[in-house]
Amino acid sequence: MKLNRNKKLTILVSNDDGIDAPGIFALAQELKKIGEVTVVAPDEQRSAVGHAITMNYPLRLKKFNKNGKFFGYAVDGTPADCVKLAVRNVLKKNPDILVSGINHGSNTAINIIYSGTVSAATEGTVMGIPSIAVSLTTYAEADFRYAAKLSRQLASFILKKGLPKDTLLNVNIPPLREKEIKGIRITRQGKSRWDDTFEVRRDPNNKEYFWLTGKLDVVDTSEETDLISIFQKYVSITPIHFDLTDYKALAEIKTWKIEKALKPKNEKR
Amino acid sequence: MKLNRNKKLTILVSNDDGIDAPGIFALAQELKKIGEVTVVAPDEQRSAVGHAITMNYPLRLKKFNKNGKFFGYAVDGTPADCVKLAVRNVLKKNPDILVSGINHGSNTAINIIYSGTVSAATEGTVMGIPSIAVSLTTYAEADFRYAAKLSRQLASFILKKGLPKDTLLNVNIPPLREKEIKGIRITRQGKSRWDDTFEVRRDPNNKEYFWLTGKLDVVDTSEETDLISIFQKYVSITPIHFDLTDYKALAEIKTWKIEKALKPKNEKR
Repeated sequence: MKLNRNKKLTILVSNDDGIDAPGIFALAQELKKIGEVTVVAPDEQRSAVGHAITMNYPLRLKKFNKNGKFFGYAVDGTPADCVKLAVRNVLKKNPDILVSGINHGSNTAINIIYSGTVSAATEGTVMGIPSIAVSLTTYAEADFRYAAKLSRQLASFILKKGLPKDTLLNVNIPPLREKEIKGIRITRQGKSRWDDTFEVRRDPNNKEYFWLTGKLDVVDTSEETDLISIFQKYVSITPIHFDLTDYKALAEIKTWKIEKALKPKNEKR
Repeated sequence: MKLNRNKKLTILVSNDDGIDAPGIFALAQELKKIGEVTVVAPDEQRSAVGHAITMNYPLRLKKFNKNGKFFGYAVDGTPADCVKLAVRNVLKKNPDILVSGINHGSNTAINIIYSGTVSAATEGTVMGIPSIAVSLTTYAEADFRYAAKLSRQLASFILKKGLPKDTLLNVNIPPLREKEIKGIRITRQGKSRWDDTFEVRRDPNNKEYFWLTGKLDVVDTSEETDLISIFQKYVSITPIHFDLTDYKALAEIKTWKIEKALKPKNEKR
């Protein structure tokens, strides 16, 4: 991808923690150093919304101020809604790059499929925009400075280099100071599962309700995975895509001859 | 997988159209012919919810009657929530199989990533349950009889044969009578994108709101895809998984040496 040096870069920023989250503020401030930043993000936290879009009710877009200054547009929808609305009705064209985040909490292993942060970057990719999702892997009080700096560096790198078609980068950054980070690894999505439990409680009317809780069970402990790289104090960058076809299983299942075993009763044959 | 003939098969049924939808009723009635069916589904339509889970508020489970008889449990959550709650707190063990659907509308190509129907089957797969998602590819008034029959046939087939680990089947069925169906194809996920537009309207207070609309743009017209198979009057069965790693891009991006270009400033090196 060749960039015209005279043209100001357009950068779209979204997230799933909501437009008022500290991570998106740190990200937008840093990205303003390299281009014109448009922020369009959910009006409140939409974590674990997966790749949801809103079809059954209309969306609204509101100007949002931060520290008394215009910061961006808040949408009463999901991260994917924000990206669609930003591109079609705010920018009215594709930006040069989309950066989603900085998520407060990790998006590695199985959690990728639940992630609204990744979902915004997926939506950008579907629309043909080079897109990255960035997460800081802690739920504790966090310092977003290094994560924001690296996001800017990576955005600049990708603006020069481009990304393979239909691929986005899922970036996870350990909650450490820059000098404590061991390095950067290009990784694959790790294998893990949630060992879920529901805590059963009773409301004042003695009716049951259920709170989801649980712990993560790490299945794949290879250094090549996102999850383990983070444990080892490396930044993890995983290229992901949205072709969910399991090609290995496809080859196997073709040998099963399901089409013969379950052949529809057809007059002609 | 060997089945004990004396043990009654347990079948979990969920969907995203809501527990009162005709598709889940047709499916459950048909599956009762081969096993003990437990229905746990959203209390209302949750289409295009993606792979969302509910973490910020508690869930409730209510008994739901259909035609004056107990039919199943309604949950005020997403399809993935329903599967988790069904397995952990209703069945209290993994069922022998999970069938999600029958969705009223297609879940092919790019739409798979937005699909709540597929999401329920994905959640089952993550939990180690052989799972299938079934959709009838029409939004018009629909006859679910053949789709329900094929779901039962396929469930029986999989109960005998098993499924590759971490693979689920995404099944799409054309809205035709059995004798009009040309056959069954094992397919890959097609490529398509939404050409979205938002219809801008104004409320009685003259404030703007946005309705998502758009048309599907088919990129990949191979007969091997889900979308084209449906157009050609075939049932489409696509094996999908939740390892989103783009391995081809991974190999390419490793050659870029991002870890050198963006190396963190580290005291020791």
